[in-house]
Amino acid sequence: MSGPRYTPLVEGLPSTVPFVGPETQERGMGKPFRARIGANENVFGPSPAAVAAMADAAAGIWQYGDPENHDLKHRLADGLGVQPENIVIGEGIDALLGYLARMLVSPGTPVVTSLGAYPTFNFHVSGFGGVLHAVPYKGDHEDPDALIAKAEETGAPLIYFANPDNPMGTWHSAETVQSLIDRVPEASLLILDEAYVEFAPEGIAPPLDVSNDRVIRFRTFSKAYGMAGARIGYGIAEAGLADAFNKIRNHFGVNRIAQAGALASLNDRDHVPRVRDQVAKSRERIGRIARDNGFEALDSATNFVAIDCGRDDAYAKAVLAGLVAAGVFVRMPGVAPQNRCIRVSAGTDADLDVLAEALPGVVRAIDADR
Amino acid sequence: MSGPRYTPLVEGLPSTVPFVGPETQERGMGKPFRARIGANENVFGPSPAAVAAMADAAAGIWQYGDPENHDLKHRLADGLGVQPENIVIGEGIDALLGYLARMLVSPGTPVVTSLGAYPTFNFHVSGFGGVLHAVPYKGDHEDPDALIAKAEETGAPLIYFANPDNPMGTWHSAETVQSLIDRVPEASLLILDEAYVEFAPEGIAPPLDVSNDRVIRFRTFSKAYGMAGARIGYGIAEAGLADAFNKIRNHFGVNRIAQAGALASLNDRDHVPRVRDQVAKSRERIGRIARDNGFEALDSATNFVAIDCGRDDAYAKAVLAGLVAAGVFVRMPGVAPQNRCIRVSAGTDADLDVLAEALPGVVRAIDADR
Repeated sequence: MSGPRYTPLVEGLPSTVPFVGPETQERGMGKPFRARIGANENVFGPSPAAVAAMADAAAGIWQYGDPENHDLKHRLADGLGVQPENIVIGEGIDALLGYLARMLVSPGTPVVTSLGAYPTFNFHVSGFGGVLHAVPYKGDHEDPDALIAKAEETGAPLIYFANPDNPMGTWHSAETVQSLIDRVPEASLLILDEAYVEFAPEGIAPPLDVSNDRVIRFRTFSKAYGMAGARIGYGIAEAGLADAFNKIRNHFGVNRIAQAGALASLNDRDHVPRVRDQVAKSRERIGRIARDNGFEALDSATNFVAIDCGRDDAYAKAVLAGLVAAGVFVRMPGVAPQNRCIRVSAGTDADLDVLAEALPGVVRAIDADR
Repeated sequence: MSGPRYTPLVEGLPSTVPFVGPETQERGMGKPFRARIGANENVFGPSPAAVAAMADAAAGIWQYGDPENHDLKHRLADGLGVQPENIVIGEGIDALLGYLARMLVSPGTPVVTSLGAYPTFNFHVSGFGGVLHAVPYKGDHEDPDALIAKAEETGAPLIYFANPDNPMGTWHSAETVQSLIDRVPEASLLILDEAYVEFAPEGIAPPLDVSNDRVIRFRTFSKAYGMAGARIGYGIAEAGLADAFNKIRNHFGVNRIAQAGALASLNDRDHVPRVRDQVAKSRERIGRIARDNGFEALDSATNFVAIDCGRDDAYAKAVLAGLVAAGVFVRMPGVAPQNRCIRVSAGTDADLDVLAEALPGVVRAIDADR
């Protein structure tokens, strides 16, 4: 048999996965992780009100969700001071990035991002045949000047920029981000990925300006709202751009329980501040654990900390492997020079007890091997 | 501003929706429907075990779902007598149809379906620039001979066929479907959409043959399992084809609560038989209500009934509009000659009481207007 006639583009794509899930690693090891602090999930969980709303919604799951996401869209718009027409809701930022890549990327389209930034964006761009132009980080920060220069050089219709950044946790000021927005070339579109913005210091997000169709901002219920498994996120954009998603999106794609949980989350105003406090304390303790082991922790505006292990990528990989073998799920940046670091998500006290207990032995074992 | 530089393909697409949701209609009317029997949702709901599993999973939604869908995939494979490598799980059949269209359809690619068959498939094909070749139904049945003839004529790499059919509820025997599969041209792929198969008489599904890479079968938790809002369905295919979805799918796209609910559903062996009985009784009553009003009900192998209103599309549309105005959410086929019918989903006794009460007045009002 000759097999299905894939398009030439799809025929040439690798069968891949942007991230290996912790469950896959657990099956490989034959035992569960003792601490799940690798995927920047929010271990402090969703709002109790969201949990209750989701549990209540379970029996009604026989109904499709509202394809317009009307109630959530209106609630978000009210909170953000924009119109419902400026909001597009989708199955997590991942799905929205995929839709946007599909809207702007054809085979050969240049797309600008940072070397080592979010792999799932790259996966979508490559999946539509785009050609990635990745500029280096500058001192562990994404580099707005380099992004703009590369966009001008390549004529890219799409630029990716995250603030705060993942995987380093670093951030830029609102002024710097606004200056980046102001310099986006005509007929380019900037993706401002603000997945972690709720964890950041006040004032790093420039004001929303939904008259500007050169920027789309993505936010999510996966991180501060603790609903990663629900697959629900949103974009804030000029109305024509937000509406263009209707050309291609999976209209009935958002889970009805996720809609209920997201709405309840927004109505619990205490939850995100509480999570911010818990995350801040956890980041501090991760920093102490890092320093206790001779490492350095980067300042972070997110719910994770990049720990600079102080040597090369081989060393950081050994630290990572040691922690994983000891039952601590963590990840690390994929590209130099950031890959001298490991990335540890904020954890509960119990999670960080496991980290604190495991790390010295891991470091000793590596040193003994050298 | 010139706006985002959409691809020429996307630039030319309409901003659309394959179906208007009942919530949109309710907002337009300013009141809720009294009976929600229009979207072939399963009003009898999910398994109580699934409801419990989903409620239990709510607090753990801070974790991403397993991107491999490992446990559900293995459970399905065991039940179906295939290997896990033959299963691809996705965010409902809608998303899987979208992925498959993306894999095989480029601008200009011919694709074969039936005139009036599932609009969301058409939406995805058009969304990737495919050219739809739709053959007429034959006596309210999809026409396998015509589908094969058109596939041969056009050289289409993709053919869509649903058994049982939506929107008519009709079906073909396993022998007829097997004969269709056997005649799929080399290097064509048949989508056998079996979304409603659990409602059908025994023996309409030909045996699974996962060595055949000219057919992929789609099934779902949205219908008999009562989890439409959860967005979870699956394909059964030759291993290489199932794996090819990994090139482009949203790996973390399936909701974690949906994974838990689907798994629990499969482990409750009593639920689907119970739903089948409830649906069969409901179909019978819909038939009686139709006949009481001078209409005819088509035999159905699904959880809905096409009611032949006996005149033209204008008449059926008037009946539909009258029912909607009376608070009964129903839909109708979009294309002649099927659009002489309205389509009513199986409902609870209370739902059908509303239908039985409303329909005579609707018919009288139309007749009075003529």
